[in-house]
Amino acid sequence: MQKQAEFPEAIKTKYPEQIVIAIAKDKAGRANPVTLGWTMIVSGTPPMMAIAVASRHYSIETIRHSKCFTIAFPSSEMADAALFLGSKSGRDTDKFAEFDCKTEPAKAIDSVLLADAVANFECTLESETEAGDHIIFVGKVVSSHTNTEPKKRLYTVGPGHKLGSAS
Amino acid sequence: MQKQAEFPEAIKTKYPEQIVIAIAKDKAGRANPVTLGWTMIVSGTPPMMAIAVASRHYSIETIRHSKCFTIAFPSSEMADAALFLGSKSGRDTDKFAEFDCKTEPAKAIDSVLLADAVANFECTLESETEAGDHIIFVGKVVSSHTNTEPKKRLYTVGPGHKLGSAS
Repeated sequence: MQKQAEFPEAIKTKYPEQIVIAIAKDKAGRANPVTLGWTMIVSGTPPMMAIAVASRHYSIETIRHSKCFTIAFPSSEMADAALFLGSKSGRDTDKFAEFDCKTEPAKAIDSVLLADAVANFECTLESETEAGDHIIFVGKVVSSHTNTEPKKRLYTVGPGHKLGSAS
Repeated sequence: MQKQAEFPEAIKTKYPEQIVIAIAKDKAGRANPVTLGWTMIVSGTPPMMAIAVASRHYSIETIRHSKCFTIAFPSSEMADAALFLGSKSGRDTDKFAEFDCKTEPAKAIDSVLLADAVANFECTLESETEAGDHIIFVGKVVSSHTNTEPKKRLYTVGPGHKLGSAS
């Protein structure tokens, strides 16, 4: 049976929620990563994925500038990186310089991959749609990569940015 | 270290992936539920959620007709319902008549809630965006509900529609 609840209370039933790290280069050519919990696949043929980015985030500018971005699935061992990359702004921080997070060059777009991620998807920007306090970016996947080692994906498993694996 | 892979292979690293059941009434006033794995929250203030629905699905017509829809988080006990509601088309089946899945009337929109779900979110249609072989519908949450009993959310935990809880 259902009982009415405020949205912030009701949405606490969402866990575990998957995490991605989206990366796009800014005007200075600096790769700017951001941790995001709001993401989904949106098309099978051609493959497309979507992310929702807070309107005030520096990442908005970088994605609009680059017109492409990487979506990385961080591994369960990357909780510290995910927290760091999600809590600083690329406006005043070179996140990859401040936090040791190994990257590899992307193959098909001007971005980077996360070497220790479970998987990386290189996307070209397909569309953007305003939705409340976020912008939805849809990317067409033009190159995909997986880790050479088996890894588990990282999730938010509870309120307060509690991170972990889910199985 | 990353190695290049085909998208269908690389995307297998996505599990567990959350499931929702979206419900909208068709022209005949019949509530049509569909199970979806592609969904995300897209805004905090106001609260908004998005779903990606295959372009050929009957649900497209029902959402466009109703201009509103419910997003239900099925519980881990609802795997059979999720499989049934996701494998039949509302074009030729009254899914709620054929599969016993208890509903309650929605409060703020002309739709229904799933009585045994973890939570239900009533949404008014905010926008739609074409993305490859799917349409992204964004809904503004106008009423939220949780189960009076504690329940775990249902996930796709592996290829071939393998469903279960995740923790």
